[in-house]
Amino acid sequence: MRNIKLIIEYDGTNYCGWQRQNNVMTIQEKTERAIEEITGEKILITGCSRTDTGVHAKGYVGNFYTNSKILMEKFTGAINSKLPRDIVILHSFEVPDEFHSRYNSIGKMYSYTIVNRRQYVALGRNYIYHHQIILNVENMQLATQYFIGTHDFSAFKNLGSSVKTSVRTITKLDIEQNEDIIKIYIAADGFLYNMVRIIVGALIRVGEGKIKPNEIKNIIESKERSKAGKAVPASGLCLEEVFY
Amino acid sequence: MRNIKLIIEYDGTNYCGWQRQNNVMTIQEKTERAIEEITGEKILITGCSRTDTGVHAKGYVGNFYTNSKILMEKFTGAINSKLPRDIVILHSFEVPDEFHSRYNSIGKMYSYTIVNRRQYVALGRNYIYHHQIILNVENMQLATQYFIGTHDFSAFKNLGSSVKTSVRTITKLDIEQNEDIIKIYIAADGFLYNMVRIIVGALIRVGEGKIKPNEIKNIIESKERSKAGKAVPASGLCLEEVFY
Repeated sequence: MRNIKLIIEYDGTNYCGWQRQNNVMTIQEKTERAIEEITGEKILITGCSRTDTGVHAKGYVGNFYTNSKILMEKFTGAINSKLPRDIVILHSFEVPDEFHSRYNSIGKMYSYTIVNRRQYVALGRNYIYHHQIILNVENMQLATQYFIGTHDFSAFKNLGSSVKTSVRTITKLDIEQNEDIIKIYIAADGFLYNMVRIIVGALIRVGEGKIKPNEIKNIIESKERSKAGKAVPASGLCLEEVFY
Repeated sequence: MRNIKLIIEYDGTNYCGWQRQNNVMTIQEKTERAIEEITGEKILITGCSRTDTGVHAKGYVGNFYTNSKILMEKFTGAINSKLPRDIVILHSFEVPDEFHSRYNSIGKMYSYTIVNRRQYVALGRNYIYHHQIILNVENMQLATQYFIGTHDFSAFKNLGSSVKTSVRTITKLDIEQNEDIIKIYIAADGFLYNMVRIIVGALIRVGEGKIKPNEIKNIIESKERSKAGKAVPASGLCLEEVFY
């Protein structure tokens, strides 16, 4: 058997997330069907993580086993020819048998895009979250220091997946502003369910002046989900890169 | 009668351009209907220009006359409440009777967005043009000097609108590259039909090495449409701003 690693870009707007489910269309199912068409085999892709409905990816990683003799340099094009235009295989590689997209991942980076202005937004609504209250980005940047490092992020986790521990290490949390666009990049060794969206929600509360930057420290230490506030919508979220 | 000027942002993906036509949905018709709902009057919006199917706008300008007594500060919100989410009134102002969105315009700026990479693109496909041959952006930048200034742009005009003269003055033509995104900004006192898309098409031929930067001079002087090459698709085009 060959083990094939895929780097996948997708527009999550029209899918119920990555993971195969009954009765709804998912990115996993579309991609497995495309590979089944070219290999003639039943295919199961191991994905690096779940993503929620409406979340996008520029560098999702999955792997699958196949007996197909298709030349490695033909895989990417062959699969893309069977995929809808909102799912694209960027790269495919043959990897050692033991490679596992989820277990071998040592970290991930997500981005979250906010359009911050009073006026409504007509353009690109599927890729952003529109926030009307003007945010103090400097205060949001001050708050990032309390997230960085190794903490129990129980306060920033929604129920929905079982994990052994809520301790994660955030290695990067950058906020960039370009006119009315605020872009947040966050990297960690792993993320709890809805963790990025709850962190961005808390940063927005800092930006609105509802909480002070250093209150993030107390929220983390409280380990109470109710202290962290609401998660922001899925549309602004994009899985940028998975690290191995 | 009051004369109201509107600044409009729209996602052109699902419309057959700005201008009202029979049997197809246009941005003009949607916007006029929204204003009719709030004023109870028959409304005709004078637009700054036509835009083609799939072209977007961040700052389209239109004006209309009304006897409505709606307070000026309420207009924007009231119209938006009746519009679909892909058309947004950003600002509305009361302007002198004689203001005319098209005749009074002294110039416009468009942007054109290219994603330049071998791999297909899944994300944001409605807002970009994907070009697979890697472009030499430095050569494209060298070519811009031949466009700037006052020229007869007959070679860069498609049939479809009657104009007295094909002489236009391009005041700005900037090309920015950020990783695989190439963004072109072009400002002029006015544009001929499809002029931006044909200019970008010619710049792409320069970037591919099919023509040399200084050949743009000959193409302009030839005044022959066939020399300039194909227009690029509408999806990458956005009307950024109209000058008065």
